[in-house]
Amino acid sequence: MKTLFKNADILLFENGIYNVIKNAYLAVDGNKISYIGKDEPSDSFDETKDMHGKLLMSGFYNCHNHCPMVLLRGVGSDLPLNEWLFNKVFPIEDKLTAEEIEAGTKLALLEMLAGGTVSFSDMYFEPQVTARAVADSGMKANLTRPVQSFDPNEEPKDSFRIAQSLELYNEWNKAENDRILIDFSIHAEYTCTEKIARAYIEESNKRKGNLHIHLSETVKEHNECKEKYGKTPTEWFNALGAFDSRAFAAHCVTLEDSDMDIILQKGVNVVHNPTSNMKLGSGFARIPKMLDMGINVALGTDGAASNNNLDMLEEIHLASVIHNGYMQDATVMNADTVIKMATKNGALLQGRDDCGELKVGNKADIIAISLDKPHLRPIIDEKALITYSAQSSDVYMTMVDGKVLYENGEYKTLDKEKIYYDIEKAIKKLY
Amino acid sequence: MKTLFKNADILLFENGIYNVIKNAYLAVDGNKISYIGKDEPSDSFDETKDMHGKLLMSGFYNCHNHCPMVLLRGVGSDLPLNEWLFNKVFPIEDKLTAEEIEAGTKLALLEMLAGGTVSFSDMYFEPQVTARAVADSGMKANLTRPVQSFDPNEEPKDSFRIAQSLELYNEWNKAENDRILIDFSIHAEYTCTEKIARAYIEESNKRKGNLHIHLSETVKEHNECKEKYGKTPTEWFNALGAFDSRAFAAHCVTLEDSDMDIILQKGVNVVHNPTSNMKLGSGFARIPKMLDMGINVALGTDGAASNNNLDMLEEIHLASVIHNGYMQDATVMNADTVIKMATKNGALLQGRDDCGELKVGNKADIIAISLDKPHLRPIIDEKALITYSAQSSDVYMTMVDGKVLYENGEYKTLDKEKIYYDIEKAIKKLY
Repeated sequence: MKTLFKNADILLFENGIYNVIKNAYLAVDGNKISYIGKDEPSDSFDETKDMHGKLLMSGFYNCHNHCPMVLLRGVGSDLPLNEWLFNKVFPIEDKLTAEEIEAGTKLALLEMLAGGTVSFSDMYFEPQVTARAVADSGMKANLTRPVQSFDPNEEPKDSFRIAQSLELYNEWNKAENDRILIDFSIHAEYTCTEKIARAYIEESNKRKGNLHIHLSETVKEHNECKEKYGKTPTEWFNALGAFDSRAFAAHCVTLEDSDMDIILQKGVNVVHNPTSNMKLGSGFARIPKMLDMGINVALGTDGAASNNNLDMLEEIHLASVIHNGYMQDATVMNADTVIKMATKNGALLQGRDDCGELKVGNKADIIAISLDKPHLRPIIDEKALITYSAQSSDVYMTMVDGKVLYENGEYKTLDKEKIYYDIEKAIKKLY
Repeated sequence: MKTLFKNADILLFENGIYNVIKNAYLAVDGNKISYIGKDEPSDSFDETKDMHGKLLMSGFYNCHNHCPMVLLRGVGSDLPLNEWLFNKVFPIEDKLTAEEIEAGTKLALLEMLAGGTVSFSDMYFEPQVTARAVADSGMKANLTRPVQSFDPNEEPKDSFRIAQSLELYNEWNKAENDRILIDFSIHAEYTCTEKIARAYIEESNKRKGNLHIHLSETVKEHNECKEKYGKTPTEWFNALGAFDSRAFAAHCVTLEDSDMDIILQKGVNVVHNPTSNMKLGSGFARIPKMLDMGINVALGTDGAASNNNLDMLEEIHLASVIHNGYMQDATVMNADTVIKMATKNGALLQGRDDCGELKVGNKADIIAISLDKPHLRPIIDEKALITYSAQSSDVYMTMVDGKVLYENGEYKTLDKEKIYYDIEKAIKKLY
């Protein structure tokens, strides 16, 4: 399949910043970008799409999600954290079976595709259900079965979570479908015994795994770890070898300077979740400092239960403004930085080195932003429009690996009405 | 004209919180709400609108705006504050004539109507142009010609700004069109001499004016005022009599406790502009404390040059989450509080006591939010969906004073293509 986009404005990453070439062509051959330029390519194409009034850019990589949690969207939103978790989230999660997980996953896919997300890193149970839905949808995802253990007597060989994680890896981490990558995951320091964590990390490292963790999300978690182990969560994970293979850490709100040194030295990737950190009252991750140090920082929504959506343009927006407010300096963050976080940095974190940027040879993970709405006029600075003015409904098209999965409100691989029906059914059971 | 909405979910304010009645009727007679209930009214109607799958609620009152500044959207977004103002904003504003102001105003009206804003409080020059555009559009606005003076020798009788403000008041503050109200305005303490401010405040108070000011937006402004006058900006305005009639103050980021006491005692309304305060690095207004004290706090976008849109659902979202993050407490703000700020509190600030809430006898300023998109499913808690999940494109219909001005992407009173054409023309001149 060869597709040609014509009359497109195209956002390119050049010399460390984003520039727009106007009224240009972009060609896709199979799952790759084969041409970008001002002159019309002479090849023949199966399909030509006129992108007049639209901006092509890399799709978004949502690097921390629990996508089936859309089933809990808005539930107990304004309760104190513990009450929300123990009285709302956990009792409902206890009732979830594969059927609800599937409905929730697919609803999340609908939302993500409509908002320009091409790939996401997920951490939830029943991930094989999510894997099947992602495979069928044409999207990309880094999936994992998170390991936790509260029982000091539990032995690694008895951990069904470790078993499920390795099973998922064996079943789905196939070279022939690199849209789906299987990561490893320890939920967090405070939810896992050292014994289980150490044994599992060994399994992950043997496979050169990419380890997805929650890290220093709150002051409470951070300080309790120090009291318990005499180590910060970062030091705890590091001592267990968690950073000896690839790893990425969500939140990182309360990292100490010495933690950041470890993160940098070990090449750990950080996922910033601004909406979730604000909504749950976790606080301000020192993202500007991490970026200055050279740490690779990506963006994520976290689950919809604590966000309450999966809207990467909203994360771009919050990441671009809240640190300015917190540090009382209008120049702390800028459009180039946050667009890169949502695209190139995210793809890198996921181990997708040929994604996250529109350039010849890269995978064709492309979105088109329609610039027709009043809130995107006048068109003077496209990257400012994306960062500060756009909303996810401005995403007109989402293409993953050269296939259009969403265009002008229509889904090509997902049945929205059927998914809504299944969600209704799930809700009747859960609430 | 009598309109009936049927099959509607309706957000009502009852006993201090918002509740939804499902599958109900709302009738509009002329410019007022004449019925809300579960039973079908027996009257005959000129028009019946099926609102299945939609939530009716009060439209939004954007209480601090400089609407023609959409012409500067995205310009110099990531520059330091002074460089942005002096090298970008002021030179462009110097070139503005009535023609550009008209185009800019109308673009802002397009954006606001599409996002559910029914009324706004504006502060800009050439306000008679804005007044004409608002009058023609069917929207509501509180308009003013801001007064400033840097010349210590300028006498009140020589201030063309005072003259223009009074002229605007005489021309437009008419009982027969209460959609448009004319406010008074001193831009800020740091942009006005005491002499001019005192004389103008006297004129405003004589007319029982509603005074629109910028107040303690930044640490710099606040501290420089104290150095210059030995008073905070709030004390300075208060000493000049600015709060003896009605008044509302935008930003209020750096208010001291004693300032808040004055604000409360004098019944001054506060406008919170979370996006602008974050983006420009101004900081966190102590809104939770002001609300606890009983100060009436509304929401505003500020101008699009420092936002960069006029999206009240975005302000609702930011107001609902950033204070939780700053105070590290998930319960600081909640959906009821921020929805009320964007509606009822805003209408009150504007002096529109019969607006901002859907109830019989109130003006029919009504919006319909479509709940059809994936990011608004499942529908478990509508007010959480509005606050944390919705985007302004979810606004399906905007009705002002009983007239539908926007519905399903179509404008009834504004010519979008013509406005875009005029904006292009303006941009060619300005840039």
